[in-house]
Amino acid sequence: MKSINKIEYAIGIDLGGTNIKAAVCTSDGKVLGSPLSFSTEGEKGPEYVIKRINQAISHILLLELYRTKVHAIGIGAPGSVDYKRGHVLHPPNLPGWKNVALARIISQRWNLPVKIENDANAAALGEAHFGAGKNLDSFIGITIGTGIGSGIIMERKVVHGERGYAGELGHTKINYNGPKCNCGSYGCVEAYIGNNYLVQRTAVELKHHPSSRLFSRVIKKKITLTPKEIADAARHGDAFAFKILFDAGEKLGIALANAANFLDITTFVIGGGIAAAGKPLMDGIVTGTKKNVLATFRRRINILPSQLGNNAGMLGAAALWF
Amino acid sequence: MKSINKIEYAIGIDLGGTNIKAAVCTSDGKVLGSPLSFSTEGEKGPEYVIKRINQAISHILLLELYRTKVHAIGIGAPGSVDYKRGHVLHPPNLPGWKNVALARIISQRWNLPVKIENDANAAALGEAHFGAGKNLDSFIGITIGTGIGSGIIMERKVVHGERGYAGELGHTKINYNGPKCNCGSYGCVEAYIGNNYLVQRTAVELKHHPSSRLFSRVIKKKITLTPKEIADAARHGDAFAFKILFDAGEKLGIALANAANFLDITTFVIGGGIAAAGKPLMDGIVTGTKKNVLATFRRRINILPSQLGNNAGMLGAAALWF
Repeated sequence: MKSINKIEYAIGIDLGGTNIKAAVCTSDGKVLGSPLSFSTEGEKGPEYVIKRINQAISHILLLELYRTKVHAIGIGAPGSVDYKRGHVLHPPNLPGWKNVALARIISQRWNLPVKIENDANAAALGEAHFGAGKNLDSFIGITIGTGIGSGIIMERKVVHGERGYAGELGHTKINYNGPKCNCGSYGCVEAYIGNNYLVQRTAVELKHHPSSRLFSRVIKKKITLTPKEIADAARHGDAFAFKILFDAGEKLGIALANAANFLDITTFVIGGGIAAAGKPLMDGIVTGTKKNVLATFRRRINILPSQLGNNAGMLGAAALWF
Repeated sequence: MKSINKIEYAIGIDLGGTNIKAAVCTSDGKVLGSPLSFSTEGEKGPEYVIKRINQAISHILLLELYRTKVHAIGIGAPGSVDYKRGHVLHPPNLPGWKNVALARIISQRWNLPVKIENDANAAALGEAHFGAGKNLDSFIGITIGTGIGSGIIMERKVVHGERGYAGELGHTKINYNGPKCNCGSYGCVEAYIGNNYLVQRTAVELKHHPSSRLFSRVIKKKITLTPKEIADAARHGDAFAFKILFDAGEKLGIALANAANFLDITTFVIGGGIAAAGKPLMDGIVTGTKKNVLATFRRRINILPSQLGNNAGMLGAAALWF
């Protein structure tokens, strides 16, 4: 393995339940070329997924230019990650994975050093280095998707906690009498705003709103109800869809208020697919956070959209080397 | 002001809404002599309270031995404390205080350097140096009293956040539909377990439990209902009182679970007056935390009673110098 003083190019890999994204990233935050995107096909198990990751790396290193310049690989992986040993423990979205020594496996295959970080931490790190958090000492990066992940940046470093599993903000109980969450507990904020829950709840309420655009798309035209459909309807002025997203944002705001009260960190960077829902969701988040946070913190509350969007995780994974 | 390499003796002061406690503390965690305790009489305003603090210091420094050995003063103060500038901002339990430069005032009076820290942080620091947290890198110290305070110790340092106000765990909303809290919001854990709320709730439920010891003491014998009365009744086998404390502990456990999920810190040191309620409260806390925390953290959850009891804040304030 080569010994390097300062790494300027690293492959950043965002290993998701649905897609694997990879690209060469530079230490000044550029993504070279278009990121590759492979479907993960996680149901085929860890060996297959590792093969997919290697395919992505192989594609990148086909280019002579990259082969000579790239000296390291960073991976953002879902669920609990043992970042010190480079193990992926048992991500809920990747069946069959149990304590996989991913860093070592990939490192041996390519003779390059590999670091691994939890995907939400990687996304926050990306924003910290190159995005909305560039000028901030401390902030909390939120990723809204199937689950709600968060990465805590404190004094420009990721907070790992005892084992590296810090950031499970999605399982903040905002109502102990609330709906059941797939973690087995009740009233986690994820059970209000996570993609599947949001879609389920919308489906239930939809029948009471026959004049909404969403009703006509989903019930009449049989278009699948997705967070994107809800967001699109809201953008087209559908008051029902707007309210669904605003309410979801408000619920998330309660968890953010809890976090701000607890850590005196008042800036949040919101990313992930549904974050693209834009105004109604963001308005809800701001309202919910300010309403629920202590007066001491209220004026400082600052809710920012992600600047790196879908590239945050990839750039942050590469930034493990910068 | 003398310049000192290593301070071995410091006056530790715990400025509370009810009492001011002070003693000479040593760098190996001893309290010399019996701590002084003066009533704060906070309603008389900041000038009076500062006079009381100076009286306490004066009493201590009357002793020739202390006068020569003591080279610094540490103060734990309630509410928001600007620890960098040594200001006490506007503690809810000390009327009339607004951005008081307490460190400078006391320092000038005694020609000794003075540091100030939030009282819950000071208590956690005390436990970290000399108590239940002595061998822990990270833990969260909880102080149960009128309010619920917390001090976060991460890698052996207090987490301050952006302005030094971190640790407001008492205002974790565990049920956004819950009872009103005196912060103006709803469903804060403090509104379930803070002393006054606990007493109020018990008073309401008491009439349905005419055979309980508590009923006979409070309703028949007209003894004032206090957290201590509830704890005493529980200790005497009063099932109603036991359940009140267990339930309160369980509610606190929800907030602790949120904290553990968020920070991957799994040890909590429980102190403050009502913590002396012992088993029913502690059992409730353990049950509530384990029930609500993610499975990943469950086995590591460790709820410890304070080892320093009422001296934690004083020792921690002195430890600002050690």
